[in-house]
Amino acid sequence: MPVYLHDIPLPEAQQRLWTALQEAGLIGILDVEPIPLDENALGRVLAEPVWALLSSPHYHASAMDGYAVRSADTSAAAPSNPVQLTCGEAAAYVDTGDPLPEWADAVIPIELIEALDETGGLTRQVRRPAAVRIRAAVSPWSHVRPMGEDIVATELVLPAGQVLRPVDLGALAASGQATVKVARRPRVAVLPTGTELVAVGQPVKRGDIIEYNSIVLGAQVKQWGGEVQRYPITADDFEQICARVKEAAQWADLVLLNAGSSAGSEDFSARVVETLGELLVHGVAVRPGHPVILGMLRVDGEPARQIPIIGVPGYPVSAAITGEIFVEPLLAKWLGRQPVKPITVEAALTRKVASPAGDDDYLRVVVGDVNGRRLAAPLSRGAGVITSLVRADGIAIIPRGIQGKEAGEKVQVRLYRSPTELARTLLVIGSHDLTLDLLAQYLMSRGLRLSSSHAGSLGGLIALSRGEAHLAGSHLMDLESGEYNLTYIRKYLPDVRVKVMGWVERQQGLMVAKGNPKMIRALADLARKDVRLVNRQRGAGTRVLLDFHLGKMGISPEQVQGYGQEEFTHMAVAAAVKSGRADTGLGIAGAAQALDLDFIPLYRERYDLIVPESVYESTLFRPVIELATEEAFRKAVAALPGYQTVRMGDILAEM
Amino acid sequence: MPVYLHDIPLPEAQQRLWTALQEAGLIGILDVEPIPLDENALGRVLAEPVWALLSSPHYHASAMDGYAVRSADTSAAAPSNPVQLTCGEAAAYVDTGDPLPEWADAVIPIELIEALDETGGLTRQVRRPAAVRIRAAVSPWSHVRPMGEDIVATELVLPAGQVLRPVDLGALAASGQATVKVARRPRVAVLPTGTELVAVGQPVKRGDIIEYNSIVLGAQVKQWGGEVQRYPITADDFEQICARVKEAAQWADLVLLNAGSSAGSEDFSARVVETLGELLVHGVAVRPGHPVILGMLRVDGEPARQIPIIGVPGYPVSAAITGEIFVEPLLAKWLGRQPVKPITVEAALTRKVASPAGDDDYLRVVVGDVNGRRLAAPLSRGAGVITSLVRADGIAIIPRGIQGKEAGEKVQVRLYRSPTELARTLLVIGSHDLTLDLLAQYLMSRGLRLSSSHAGSLGGLIALSRGEAHLAGSHLMDLESGEYNLTYIRKYLPDVRVKVMGWVERQQGLMVAKGNPKMIRALADLARKDVRLVNRQRGAGTRVLLDFHLGKMGISPEQVQGYGQEEFTHMAVAAAVKSGRADTGLGIAGAAQALDLDFIPLYRERYDLIVPESVYESTLFRPVIELATEEAFRKAVAALPGYQTVRMGDILAEM
Repeated sequence: MPVYLHDIPLPEAQQRLWTALQEAGLIGILDVEPIPLDENALGRVLAEPVWALLSSPHYHASAMDGYAVRSADTSAAAPSNPVQLTCGEAAAYVDTGDPLPEWADAVIPIELIEALDETGGLTRQVRRPAAVRIRAAVSPWSHVRPMGEDIVATELVLPAGQVLRPVDLGALAASGQATVKVARRPRVAVLPTGTELVAVGQPVKRGDIIEYNSIVLGAQVKQWGGEVQRYPITADDFEQICARVKEAAQWADLVLLNAGSSAGSEDFSARVVETLGELLVHGVAVRPGHPVILGMLRVDGEPARQIPIIGVPGYPVSAAITGEIFVEPLLAKWLGRQPVKPITVEAALTRKVASPAGDDDYLRVVVGDVNGRRLAAPLSRGAGVITSLVRADGIAIIPRGIQGKEAGEKVQVRLYRSPTELARTLLVIGSHDLTLDLLAQYLMSRGLRLSSSHAGSLGGLIALSRGEAHLAGSHLMDLESGEYNLTYIRKYLPDVRVKVMGWVERQQGLMVAKGNPKMIRALADLARKDVRLVNRQRGAGTRVLLDFHLGKMGISPEQVQGYGQEEFTHMAVAAAVKSGRADTGLGIAGAAQALDLDFIPLYRERYDLIVPESVYESTLFRPVIELATEEAFRKAVAALPGYQTVRMGDILAEM
Repeated sequence: MPVYLHDIPLPEAQQRLWTALQEAGLIGILDVEPIPLDENALGRVLAEPVWALLSSPHYHASAMDGYAVRSADTSAAAPSNPVQLTCGEAAAYVDTGDPLPEWADAVIPIELIEALDETGGLTRQVRRPAAVRIRAAVSPWSHVRPMGEDIVATELVLPAGQVLRPVDLGALAASGQATVKVARRPRVAVLPTGTELVAVGQPVKRGDIIEYNSIVLGAQVKQWGGEVQRYPITADDFEQICARVKEAAQWADLVLLNAGSSAGSEDFSARVVETLGELLVHGVAVRPGHPVILGMLRVDGEPARQIPIIGVPGYPVSAAITGEIFVEPLLAKWLGRQPVKPITVEAALTRKVASPAGDDDYLRVVVGDVNGRRLAAPLSRGAGVITSLVRADGIAIIPRGIQGKEAGEKVQVRLYRSPTELARTLLVIGSHDLTLDLLAQYLMSRGLRLSSSHAGSLGGLIALSRGEAHLAGSHLMDLESGEYNLTYIRKYLPDVRVKVMGWVERQQGLMVAKGNPKMIRALADLARKDVRLVNRQRGAGTRVLLDFHLGKMGISPEQVQGYGQEEFTHMAVAAAVKSGRADTGLGIAGAAQALDLDFIPLYRERYDLIVPESVYESTLFRPVIELATEEAFRKAVAALPGYQTVRMGDILAEM
């Protein structure tokens, strides 16, 4: 049975699903569930509007500790004309919240009365005197909370669809409710399939893929108000998958079948849906995420019913975005609440992006405010890179029909974080160093976020010149003078006043596999035919260093195997060596140690922070200055292999 | 033992608590708790930074279904120069995610190969051919997800303090984690005290107060990541409260004692804290909420320890704000996460507010965007009015030292709702009508919020003239012509182009107690000495109507008992009659029926919506136009007593 994948636009795909749900009678609240009114009602969604059963207060209540009186009795009272009221008939002590006697219409606070005993003398029994004396009139309903001040019986307290917050629970209780009718939580079954999958916590071998999409999807469902059941991993076997889907459908309101939604040899999802029900959509014009399946399952039983099934793509970013696009709005409908509407802001792209013209392109971006400009820096596009969603501050959708955007063009970003959090974000673009992770960790406990984008030292200076970063990490050696950074700053940042702040000195060298099987001893070995290099990208300080020393030794790039293989970080270079993809790469000692590689130390170098003056003097940057001289932080940095912090925090140059 | 209440500034109060917590060693995470990595880890807070145990992918993985090859073998391939690769030694079929053979360094997608059988002829066995033919070279590492593409082993995956989101769980799993170390949930005991309190669901009699602060506080604690235990109500008895606090302290990390935190005769909290530990603060300069108690309890045991106790004020708004000010930051510290930072926006006050100079004044406001201006309309100031927090879009803090703000002055508003939600809010200021609640309910299901502020018909027109509302409901009769609204619009809105949209006709009349004990028959009875009126405020259409008819009958205000007693809504007038505070009031039939009052119909009147042209033509207002002609909505309105919808949606005038 051939399976075809044909992408259709997102609105059309959604419309097909809504139409099928409508026909199956599945577009409103699934069931109304009465639950007790207590703190566990938090986050549930009101299934019906709630009208007050009781007023609040439900009687005229004193708003103060004092004496309930008839206001008319007090009209003559004045400092020079005290009026005496006999307790019991014309005055009665009330605590805050006590009901007024039938005859009373006002309260005089206790500190404004004189308490009298039977003889008419002052008494200290201010709460049980024989009479009280007052020296000022009180107007009707003074210091009284009249019945219904807060809520009048029969009034609307809360509308249907309200997601219950703590104060809502208070208002419901005040209005006389003891139970609350909420929408039943939709039940979602998540079925991971794939012979290559292993569950979290199981040992992994080459070719195994850790199954975690079901955890991400399950947590999404929980977050959006559903109830989730995660099933064990099913192998890529048509019959087994059919059996699992039928089993899950007995319990579930929605089945999420992950993955096998594409059109490969072991992609059974579309066939499963066709066999057990109706295939509505196979392929949606959204990247990442396009091989989505939407369908309806027939469920046996009395009466027979239908439930939707979504074939969720296997790549983790695609899976998470499929959750946001299809699962969240469906749960919202079933809960009777509004779908989640992310805050959307406009931002300028920091670099050009190309987009497939036929698809809505979900670009993950880091967002930062630099010099009053809001910027969006694109992250990795890979559908397999879950960390791109973790690091993302939001999603910029490049709509179908647009082939891409230029650097500086405006995009609309749906935020994952609040704008308040973004305002506390330091955007670092430039050279990658391990201490930036450490810095991020220390800044977090001071309420600040550090968001770093790795673009190489030169990339960082260029970002600063465009006003697209708060600061840059840089270790660019001048090929003539051997001096660090200054020549480059003069050339690339002629118009920006910056401070060069000392950060770390670190050891650069060649990373090689454990035991150094290729017997690499020095940079000259890169010219050997049997040695494959993994290089850093153009503009990286480490690349400049390599080119400098190769030049000095008279070795041309053509002589170096793998010179054209570029990676963007020290860790990526280390990973390439670790995996055997290359025999060696130039990088820092810390990266080698992290992956248990051998390391041949060659050069010591300076890694500085380049900070525009306006940033240096801002409150946003102050915590970095403080940390630079803080003992605990310097110790943590110095504990990294090959690191020294002698000049950390010093201003090495102002230019 | 006398108890003194002395308000100190909020920062000082917080400082005293932090200092005491520091001395008791209680300022960091309480405990580290390892939990399984599954969807239940959602929302938990990482106690430690997480470093990757595994790279992801942890081997070189094919990114496509296709053939793994040596890129070097393909370099000569071209359309005119096909290259043949023998399966097994120079080509191997791989599914997406499969590991590359050791010898391969690139993948050719399956759709780009020609499958050959043993004889060199084309075969349909595209996955098990003898050889493949290609007509293009492939560069090294094409269509390969290299080891570590997503995560490199030993890299920082997530920092300590991260509140776990669904994608975070995915990244943790991908990096080889099977458990996750999170901060233990702080345990919070909530102790409601008060002889006058009754639990939710129990019958209430006069003087009883429904206890719901513990539910609000409990739900707050849950929302902020704590674990809560609510205790039964304790009577106002010093010994009993002491016993309960000691019991709770055995389990809890924090005790919330509600209420009795003021200085009244039955306010025991301060004494309880002094007896069982140390009283740090009694009174904070914050309104509402000032009678807060902060202290430390001694807890017996091995070893003896200390825990904080907070005496939470009894008024529900004070209690909820005390939660936000003191409990949330404390839980944040104990969870190692950042405190909740609400989004703050600037808005212009729609009316003057007076503030106590000595206190931070927490003003609850409704926020709306009208004609590009962001406005904050103050809600009820009463500390007992929980619905003011329910309706509030945010809190404007008028700081200590400022006695108030003028209308139009800017305030900073800490939002309870997202700015996206506020942008979908229709702000209605003007006359109150029951159908506005109904409209709000219908608009909600269309993703729109209607926020109404009751200021009377005239108040609505004035708000429109100042550009401070999207629309106004109005039923102002011209005292000479008997015509509705037009004269007033001409007078108060000379410069604004508006449409007068027909809404409802409704019945006005006198509401009286059931059975009409005072035998009220007509408006003339208001002149009787034994009849007490409850009136509407100046500027209300109903007030204009009353004054018009009293004038016609030659009855002066001085002849009417209670003429000076003003309420702002029909329901409040009905509540006053219901409670016996007044014998009658002019209002609509619906309000009388809602509270089961008798009703003497007197006048039919028109209630119109006054809509500036710019609003009428906006997408924000379109749903109102649609609803006005929608059968279901008109039926729901007509079902209200005394309502007709004949001209609903008609444009009665443009001016």
